[in-house]
Amino acid sequence: MGKTLKELAGYLGGTVIGDGETLIRGLAGLDDAKAGEITFLANPRYAAKVATTGATAVVLPPGADPCGKDGIEVKNPYLAFAKLLTLFTSRPYRSRGVMEGARIGSNVTMGREVAVYPGAFVGDGVKLGERVTLHPGVVLYEGVELGDDVTLHANVTVRERCRIGSRVIVHSGAVIGSDGFGYAPDGAAWYKIPQIGIVVIEDDVEIGANAAIDRAALEVTRIGRGTKIDNLAQIAHNCVIGANCMIVSQVGIAGSVKVGEHVTLAGQVGVAGHLEVGDNVMVGAKSGITHSIPAGQMVSGIPAFSHREWLRASAVFQTLPELRRTVSALEKKVQELEEKLAGKC
Amino acid sequence: MGKTLKELAGYLGGTVIGDGETLIRGLAGLDDAKAGEITFLANPRYAAKVATTGATAVVLPPGADPCGKDGIEVKNPYLAFAKLLTLFTSRPYRSRGVMEGARIGSNVTMGREVAVYPGAFVGDGVKLGERVTLHPGVVLYEGVELGDDVTLHANVTVRERCRIGSRVIVHSGAVIGSDGFGYAPDGAAWYKIPQIGIVVIEDDVEIGANAAIDRAALEVTRIGRGTKIDNLAQIAHNCVIGANCMIVSQVGIAGSVKVGEHVTLAGQVGVAGHLEVGDNVMVGAKSGITHSIPAGQMVSGIPAFSHREWLRASAVFQTLPELRRTVSALEKKVQELEEKLAGKC
Amino acid sequence: MGKTLKELAGYLGGTVIGDGETLIRGLAGLDDAKAGEITFLANPRYAAKVATTGATAVVLPPGADPCGKDGIEVKNPYLAFAKLLTLFTSRPYRSRGVMEGARIGSNVTMGREVAVYPGAFVGDGVKLGERVTLHPGVVLYEGVELGDDVTLHANVTVRERCRIGSRVIVHSGAVIGSDGFGYAPDGAAWYKIPQIGIVVIEDDVEIGANAAIDRAALEVTRIGRGTKIDNLAQIAHNCVIGANCMIVSQVGIAGSVKVGEHVTLAGQVGVAGHLEVGDNVMVGAKSGITHSIPAGQMVSGIPAFSHREWLRASAVFQTLPELRRTVSALEKKVQELEEKLAGKC
Repeated sequence: MGKTLKELAGYLGGTVIGDGETLIRGLAGLDDAKAGEITFLANPRYAAKVATTGATAVVLPPGADPCGKDGIEVKNPYLAFAKLLTLFTSRPYRSRGVMEGARIGSNVTMGREVAVYPGAFVGDGVKLGERVTLHPGVVLYEGVELGDDVTLHANVTVRERCRIGSRVIVHSGAVIGSDGFGYAPDGAAWYKIPQIGIVVIEDDVEIGANAAIDRAALEVTRIGRGTKIDNLAQIAHNCVIGANCMIVSQVGIAGSVKVGEHVTLAGQVGVAGHLEVGDNVMVGAKSGITHSIPAGQMVSGIPAFSHREWLRASAVFQTLPELRRTVSALEKKVQELEEKLAGKC
Repeated sequence: MGKTLKELAGYLGGTVIGDGETLIRGLAGLDDAKAGEITFLANPRYAAKVATTGATAVVLPPGADPCGKDGIEVKNPYLAFAKLLTLFTSRPYRSRGVMEGARIGSNVTMGREVAVYPGAFVGDGVKLGERVTLHPGVVLYEGVELGDDVTLHANVTVRERCRIGSRVIVHSGAVIGSDGFGYAPDGAAWYKIPQIGIVVIEDDVEIGANAAIDRAALEVTRIGRGTKIDNLAQIAHNCVIGANCMIVSQVGIAGSVKVGEHVTLAGQVGVAGHLEVGDNVMVGAKSGITHSIPAGQMVSGIPAFSHREWLRASAVFQTLPELRRTVSALEKKVQELEEKLAGKC
Repeated sequence: MGKTLKELAGYLGGTVIGDGETLIRGLAGLDDAKAGEITFLANPRYAAKVATTGATAVVLPPGADPCGKDGIEVKNPYLAFAKLLTLFTSRPYRSRGVMEGARIGSNVTMGREVAVYPGAFVGDGVKLGERVTLHPGVVLYEGVELGDDVTLHANVTVRERCRIGSRVIVHSGAVIGSDGFGYAPDGAAWYKIPQIGIVVIEDDVEIGANAAIDRAALEVTRIGRGTKIDNLAQIAHNCVIGANCMIVSQVGIAGSVKVGEHVTLAGQVGVAGHLEVGDNVMVGAKSGITHSIPAGQMVSGIPAFSHREWLRASAVFQTLPELRRTVSALEKKVQELEEKLAGKC
């Protein structure tokens, strides 16, 4: 497959530099690209490589020197590269229908062009949108609803009545709608509180391999539109996660937490129960959130506070033995001074 | 389904306040409850809501003001609510037998009224108790034994010869009896130590989604009666966990650890190998246990120490840059004092 | 099965002490071993138990006193014990062929003596070596390649085109080749960057239950020969892990990290993206790596620094409230001294 530079510029909403009829057949990084390929300059540090790359054309930010090469000027070359990668590598959707060896319950409704693999299990009363792909080992309990263009990878489980929007991708082994971890103390033992709510996953969400999202006790655990959740993350019952968040691998969010929009929780972060995390908050890796965080803050540490101050405090932490020695030496000197001064009087 | 207040009071072991013939058809929280429903007051902070709730009746602790409403007085309203929720929402157990598409090995014994879904696999020599439910994708290796009223959710794996008691619930994707992580150094490489022990899970345990519990090297990894383990927790080989513990999400317990009874390990805690954690210990979220902890202590931090002292030390940690500046200023002043005093002499 | 001491010494490359014709039928620890069994002394602290153990023979390090017992002298008794355990407990490999209920795609090639269980799914174009075992619920997407003597436990998923070497063991629920977590910001939303690379797992690797190893964006995520990865670990896209590493449970390694050979990452460690961790590095449990670590270092802490200094700083951390009180008292005394001295002049 080949595309002209002009076609690609139109696709990206960018401006052609040089010959719009130049034919492009693929793409690669600045170092690896060859003739016939397009590459991109996202980091100005690598501007010198535009002159030396083997690529035929370069995607450039406004004002960058094309070094005599053909190219496309766009606002965001990194995004443009992602879009070109999609264009050049995505394969057309292939409907394979309900294959032999898939198990379909009663009262199931399906949109057009689904692909249900052998070994997938679709419970009673499930509703599937159009172009839904259920890989082998996917299990949908009764009453689950999926939107259009949903892909559930192998061995994903979705528990009863949970609802998943359109264009959602769930990676292998993830579990949606397991019981929340709720017990009432009954003397020494624990009495299980029924978890009869559901999980709602809005459109354009992606959920990582072996992640776990628990159903609410009574109402809804919600993952907002466009939010991306990485592998092995844990979202407890009754959480409400806003739109377009990035929840990185192995993050754990305890029960009933409200997370705003466009929040970033870096790897292995923990959030205690019943807190609120405001819009655009960024939490540094491995941090522990023990108080609600207002919108726009960047925090780190266990417990978490200002990321900038945490960096400073952490630097001092490494010198604590020295600081203690200094304080001990001061104590001694001050005592000597006191004695000297007393002697003077 | 409706129950009279008198019936509910009998079920809860509580005392009717007002009209025992009042009919109750459901339950909800103080804010959401409507006529015909019962609600509960667990937190005295919300006592004023008893007057304004739409509920027909209220479960109250001893001495609370029913504000003229009908109600039930009980010692523990939270527990009572959990029990009422179970009463009103639990559906009768439904035996579906061994369904078409389930795979049953040789020499399998089964109790009455099991439900084995399509896509479940039961290995040779497995023993199932009564009313066992195996959802699709459950895999029981050879010689596994399950008690009565066990539910294994979709895609749970139980490895060879492991034993699970009665009334145990295992959530989707959990793995019971995977090999322990044991290797002997053999020059640069690692020689695998066979893991030929098993896992024993006692009665009334619940295990979360995608949790992993490794089999012992030689003997038994044991999870005590009534212990609850949350999603994505890791229990390594040869651990012995006591009864009625709460092991929260993403906790990791290294090999050969002994945990007492009624221990709480909060989210993302780690416990190093070969330690003992005494009865009733509470460990704060994200802490790292590097020494054995005597019974009854509450600890936090990495490494963990007294929770109360950890709170204080963490508060000072945030002011470390200031503390260092103070010490530097003191050093300067003391030097000046020394010089002045020397000048005087 | 019985073996003479002479046979066992030959197998271990050790030297017989006493009667080489002594027959050994099994093995156990020093405390538990009975007549007819062999035990081992790995830790010199337990040397006195050699005299009292019920074992018929003892595996000993050079120079240890056999206390009149028969035995075998070897350089590394722990390794010898692991090898004897393998010898006495491993069962011969049992080829069961492709069983009924397994699903095999088109253009699949298989070596001799495979065992493919019911409920396993083998996609189009997959290549299996000899003596490969696929337990129930294993899903191999199209084009996957496995070497010889590979065991994939129940419910493992391997995504398209990933390659796994020989003698690899993957435990239940692990996911190999899920999409890397890569998105380009597109205003408020996130644009998915196609993840079209693969995972390559070299020979003799073992991967724990419910671990997740993401495919590269463009090229290869690689796990080096002999490396052992524990349960619930996360390896992000484009990582290159060297040979013979130990990656303990719940470790998370972010994207594009290079890890050298024989590196140990203890439980719950996190490594930030694009870093290099040198050969033979050891990282303490729960640490957070935020800078590249040169070969041979032992580090701990969040962020990590010298393990030895971290131990010291952590000890001072616990006394921070006291240190602050000392500094406050010093401030007061110095002020008093300043005033006194001013009065003198």
